[in-house]
Amino acid sequence: MTHDIKIVTEAELRGVVGLDLDAVDVVERAFTALAGGDVVMPPILSMDLPAANGEVDVKTAYIPGFDGFAIKVSPGFFDNPKLGLPSLNGLMILFSAKTGMVQALFLDNGYLTDLRTAAAGAVAARHLAPEVVDTAGVIGTGVQARLQMKAAHLVRPFKTLLVWGRDAAKAQACADDLAADLGVDVRVMDDPSKLVSLSQLVVTTTPAREPVLKAEWLHKGLHITAMGSDQDGKNEIDPRALAVADLYVADRVSQTELLGELRSAKQAGQWMHGLPAELGNVITGDAPGRRSEDDITIADLTGTGAQDTAIASHVFAMLKGSDAGTVIHA
Amino acid sequence: MTHDIKIVTEAELRGVVGLDLDAVDVVERAFTALAGGDVVMPPILSMDLPAANGEVDVKTAYIPGFDGFAIKVSPGFFDNPKLGLPSLNGLMILFSAKTGMVQALFLDNGYLTDLRTAAAGAVAARHLAPEVVDTAGVIGTGVQARLQMKAAHLVRPFKTLLVWGRDAAKAQACADDLAADLGVDVRVMDDPSKLVSLSQLVVTTTPAREPVLKAEWLHKGLHITAMGSDQDGKNEIDPRALAVADLYVADRVSQTELLGELRSAKQAGQWMHGLPAELGNVITGDAPGRRSEDDITIADLTGTGAQDTAIASHVFAMLKGSDAGTVIHA
Repeated sequence: MTHDIKIVTEAELRGVVGLDLDAVDVVERAFTALAGGDVVMPPILSMDLPAANGEVDVKTAYIPGFDGFAIKVSPGFFDNPKLGLPSLNGLMILFSAKTGMVQALFLDNGYLTDLRTAAAGAVAARHLAPEVVDTAGVIGTGVQARLQMKAAHLVRPFKTLLVWGRDAAKAQACADDLAADLGVDVRVMDDPSKLVSLSQLVVTTTPAREPVLKAEWLHKGLHITAMGSDQDGKNEIDPRALAVADLYVADRVSQTELLGELRSAKQAGQWMHGLPAELGNVITGDAPGRRSEDDITIADLTGTGAQDTAIASHVFAMLKGSDAGTVIHA
Repeated sequence: MTHDIKIVTEAELRGVVGLDLDAVDVVERAFTALAGGDVVMPPILSMDLPAANGEVDVKTAYIPGFDGFAIKVSPGFFDNPKLGLPSLNGLMILFSAKTGMVQALFLDNGYLTDLRTAAAGAVAARHLAPEVVDTAGVIGTGVQARLQMKAAHLVRPFKTLLVWGRDAAKAQACADDLAADLGVDVRVMDDPSKLVSLSQLVVTTTPAREPVLKAEWLHKGLHITAMGSDQDGKNEIDPRALAVADLYVADRVSQTELLGELRSAKQAGQWMHGLPAELGNVITGDAPGRRSEDDITIADLTGTGAQDTAIASHVFAMLKGSDAGTVIHA
């Protein structure tokens, strides 16, 4: 028995879905569901391919209440730039949550991952950042630096944006792009400690293996979202920062303790608060969030299959009534 | 940067690739590679979905010497027949082993899995069955019962084929199909013990959770391939049979001890031979195979990601020069 499968390319997806509050809301639903305990989210399937200087991750999650579930395959092949190809690509497959039939293939080359990662940053900012954020800062100058700031601006419409990166030219390019996109005052900083001291919201978006944000830079009324660490060995935030912050929140503890900032803090002997809260529990109110405007809070985002299911479902809904994509009878 | 991705449906695949010695040979190459130790084959990602009476497995393997690697997603949703839909479906994605770029999507609904599973049966028979097989028997009456016998006939051209199943009508239908396909004498048996006693090669193809083949039925010069067990709880072969056979061979020990007949034998305290041989090691000669025509041998096949990579690569090669499929620029 054949059925219709919708196949949608990156270019078509970019025409249909972008980073907006609807995307943030659907990703927030995924975190809320994670808190409920009925989500089925197996450990990430991770395949290291040293012979090809590559790696492949597979993530998935089944979320009750969503009509479909996504399986996402993310290859990273780090010799590709020598061939003029991007290092990262991949696709998402959306299955019916009722029948397991393939509903759609999103040949997104990581675009939907970019969106759902940025949306998670907005969810963290919405529930953890101070109510008023005049100045936001981003450490890092890549695609996520831009998207995280756009996402944060949706929920905390800051007036000033500070950018720091190791490469001043890239930092300037990122600042220029964000100034054009957000219409706010954007400045490139020459010192990340100054960026942190002036900001109420800071997002770190780097692949750092040594902390780029020091514990001694923390100050009252600061929220930090660290979204760069997604594997063993990466570390953006000084382990001691997790010890001294008023609140640390994981996207998923089972992931952050292996892949995120929690791993580094535990390894450094700086974690002594027991089982951390998860973002979903803060959203539902099951775990305390920020208690005052003075609190220092840290969100540690490693990226969950639940976000993939959320964004894929969101895109599929948006595609209804659109003629984007190719339909295959399979 | 866009590139071409070939999308091929089950119907198109059926027109291009079938069960033949080329398919057997490419799957044998995968087993040989597994023995070499350079294959990267992560544990199966398995997601149980009790709320939907479903499950999803993801398998993959990177095999040096193959241009691509496959990721296979196999959903099983067991309420589907109530909706007039098949329980099993799924797809394979073929990636470049050099760049990680998606090369092809095979919307095969499990057809390629059927082929590579049958091909593995032929590989086991080729390397473990007695040189002369006059009579082959199959326990089970489904798709794999048919394909396993066709595969076995490619490497051991038996003259008589015996079929047993719990449902006599299904057994007769299976026998009729195989008689037409293979042009051999096919008989439905009313007693599986008689089937085993008359056969030199027996394949079990059932989802049994209690053994369908008893240890006391074993006789000199018998080879058994058990391919039905692929998860904890399934068990086709009397655990004691593994203890008394001259040789037990796993497709992959790390899988058969969790999902296959080895699991049941270990659980029953019937396994005391240490680390079992794997099929690849028998093929390469690193592990002893059948030592005489009198030996009793058992092959335990749970299905490996290496087979998926092999069959997907085989199909991709066969598609070159064919106009089957739809090309998407993504």
